[in-house]
Amino acid sequence: MKTIIIGGSATGMGVAAKLNRLDKNSEIIVIQDKEYVSLGACGIPYYVGDNFQNPEVLIARTVEEFQKTGVQVINNTKVEKVDFDKKAVYFKNKELKYDNLVIAVGAKPIIPSIKNIDATNIFTVNSKEDAIVIKKAINNNSKVLVIGSGLIGLEMVENIKHSSRAEITIIEKADRVLKNLLDQEFTKLVEEKIKEQNIKLIKEDEIVEFVKDKDNKVCGARTLSGNVIDCDVVILSIGVLPNTELFKETIIDLETNGAIKVNEYCETNVENVYAGGDCCSSLSYLYKNRRTFYLATVANKQAKVIANNISKAKSNKFAGALGTTIIRFFDLELARSGENRMFIESNNLKTKEILIKDKDHTNYVSDQEELWLKIIVDENTNQIINVQMLGKNKAVLRIYGLVSLIWARVNVDEALEQIDLPYSPPFSRTTDIIHIALSKLI
Amino acid sequence: MKTIIIGGSATGMGVAAKLNRLDKNSEIIVIQDKEYVSLGACGIPYYVGDNFQNPEVLIARTVEEFQKTGVQVINNTKVEKVDFDKKAVYFKNKELKYDNLVIAVGAKPIIPSIKNIDATNIFTVNSKEDAIVIKKAINNNSKVLVIGSGLIGLEMVENIKHSSRAEITIIEKADRVLKNLLDQEFTKLVEEKIKEQNIKLIKEDEIVEFVKDKDNKVCGARTLSGNVIDCDVVILSIGVLPNTELFKETIIDLETNGAIKVNEYCETNVENVYAGGDCCSSLSYLYKNRRTFYLATVANKQAKVIANNISKAKSNKFAGALGTTIIRFFDLELARSGENRMFIESNNLKTKEILIKDKDHTNYVSDQEELWLKIIVDENTNQIINVQMLGKNKAVLRIYGLVSLIWARVNVDEALEQIDLPYSPPFSRTTDIIHIALSKLI
Repeated sequence: MKTIIIGGSATGMGVAAKLNRLDKNSEIIVIQDKEYVSLGACGIPYYVGDNFQNPEVLIARTVEEFQKTGVQVINNTKVEKVDFDKKAVYFKNKELKYDNLVIAVGAKPIIPSIKNIDATNIFTVNSKEDAIVIKKAINNNSKVLVIGSGLIGLEMVENIKHSSRAEITIIEKADRVLKNLLDQEFTKLVEEKIKEQNIKLIKEDEIVEFVKDKDNKVCGARTLSGNVIDCDVVILSIGVLPNTELFKETIIDLETNGAIKVNEYCETNVENVYAGGDCCSSLSYLYKNRRTFYLATVANKQAKVIANNISKAKSNKFAGALGTTIIRFFDLELARSGENRMFIESNNLKTKEILIKDKDHTNYVSDQEELWLKIIVDENTNQIINVQMLGKNKAVLRIYGLVSLIWARVNVDEALEQIDLPYSPPFSRTTDIIHIALSKLI
Repeated sequence: MKTIIIGGSATGMGVAAKLNRLDKNSEIIVIQDKEYVSLGACGIPYYVGDNFQNPEVLIARTVEEFQKTGVQVINNTKVEKVDFDKKAVYFKNKELKYDNLVIAVGAKPIIPSIKNIDATNIFTVNSKEDAIVIKKAINNNSKVLVIGSGLIGLEMVENIKHSSRAEITIIEKADRVLKNLLDQEFTKLVEEKIKEQNIKLIKEDEIVEFVKDKDNKVCGARTLSGNVIDCDVVILSIGVLPNTELFKETIIDLETNGAIKVNEYCETNVENVYAGGDCCSSLSYLYKNRRTFYLATVANKQAKVIANNISKAKSNKFAGALGTTIIRFFDLELARSGENRMFIESNNLKTKEILIKDKDHTNYVSDQEELWLKIIVDENTNQIINVQMLGKNKAVLRIYGLVSLIWARVNVDEALEQIDLPYSPPFSRTTDIIHIALSKLI
């Protein structure tokens, strides 16, 4: 049985590795457009932030390591066409037939149509090459403009600040940072931290034109409101979209955002064709609504599901995702899980919610810090559908508990309020912030 | 309606405060044997460890504060007798009638019958006075003998080491430390840490006689094996027992360890008499076996249950406890929850288990540390019944997730393996240690 996998990132190489373990006789060919595979793109900001110096650390496993296990990897190769009737892929005048096809082409950064966007000092945060050129571009005299204040934007900001004395400006189209992820009470504290770090934050504005110098380099950016931001490095982090150009005029069902529609077995509408990771839309765990989760964790799990289903080792469903996220931003830590405010509002869910501000542990052990928790409960099901936390010193790892309660679909009742969470003075208080929140929700 | 509460610690004052909020017309009288109420005994080791200097910090709420809210507190008073037929308590030649009685007398340290145990430099870890005298007794030249290596013993050891250069010896009757709480793979690492800290640990031995000098002070301790340990401060931390002498010859049902038997409403066998906290036995959450949980968290929750039931605000059951515990021991952190090895063995439970050693977060972010996790599953129910963790830098707060999974009684299956836990490089890996463990249990 021959499986062709298009894409060499988390999903693609995840399928390859797992399938290879499950079925030693399976022929596995990965076709992908880079020199390397298995990029841990989440590490890019930390490389830029001088957490490590060798960009090869970003590569979880090399092509050679995969080849040794029997997986074939065809590098630097773009698949030009797939013929789903013939069950064949085409590239560089070659035809390669498959029994099973896995589409794992990932996502690509959104590049807005702004004048002079082609300047050589505008960078996306997507590849190993991006990581290397950004790190080289930034020095203590840099004026960095970060466009977009989502997770990647803020991780870049923190790391640039960590490794240099560069001046940083963030521009955000929305009225607050991290808007899709966290409610205003939390993002307000992030914005205060941005200010405290002497980083300029411009909200409700956007870049309409870059000003270039004679070297084809940006030296300024004009905003919709008419201001000009002085900058010599631009980080473009306004989001990503499924990298599915190749499938646009094919029989593969796509969402309007270009994501490939898959069922819970990660099967597309075409037999023996699977898709997973950032290029597909999946069902959310709670309400089974279709979304694209651009998360490495989802890619990993879908890779496993695909390999199980191809090998027929077992029939394996993707259970859905909660969009659980955690981020460090200087000394602040934020975590969230579940359906966001926009989903709740657009679906007119009847909810009750509570916001608690407490302390992480007892007052008499050092480093006691503030801890914030919001829990949103669907009044129809009486189950938790959203949690948000902000704290310091890893106190937000309590999100593991809240995710587990969401996952288990437990009722918010008097028994839950008594959940036996751990207490000792350096870690918590006898009545934990989670107990306080639950007691106010029943 | 008049409620008399015997005992001024977590349970007693918890009932008083909550009942007072629920029913402003309720007459509440606390009778207790100390000068103060609401001692946070968990803070004693941290006071000894110089985390704070004022012992009043150990008092969560003063007598005066309670009195102001309308709760009457009778201090320095031992109840001498309860007449359950007359519904009256007796002390100092007084009779006081009640409608409801709450027994919240807590536990007291076990004092073994060892020769010279009455020496003035042998201390228990139970009261504010204990805290003060221990702190005064220890200096850089002290030779401290800690008897017992349970939670309190080890917290004392860590804190004494933190605040002084005292020589410390631990003696433990069992073959390893923390035996009731953690399996050997974990306690082994604790014992290595004890050694690394230049603390002497003697196992499978016990003190049979203290050697006193002319000032009625211990200057040595003879062990069963015949050795003499040089010491001038002795910390006795071999455990506690319910402080229920007063009820031994009464109609109140007691366990063999002296604990008061209560049902899930925290009612004793006598009408209108409640008990909670360290002086009673409660049902464990998972198997509904009777145990005494000497835990502040349990006391707090039972206090709430009692107040709810007395006030009839709502009928409230105690859901049971898991014996969840967390402890810091130097740079190590340990957490556990659920039924212990002894329970599993004595009930012949058919279990499967997995021990995983992994890392807490990505290799390229600083301070990556080892993380250990054991999960035990009951094969009959396919549910998690025990979890144990060891790590550093708060990584063991993942126990919140595992406690939640136990509490929700979820099946360990392929859907659970996909639980959407948070990932970002400073906090975790894309496949968390919990995912790894679950994947090996299905």
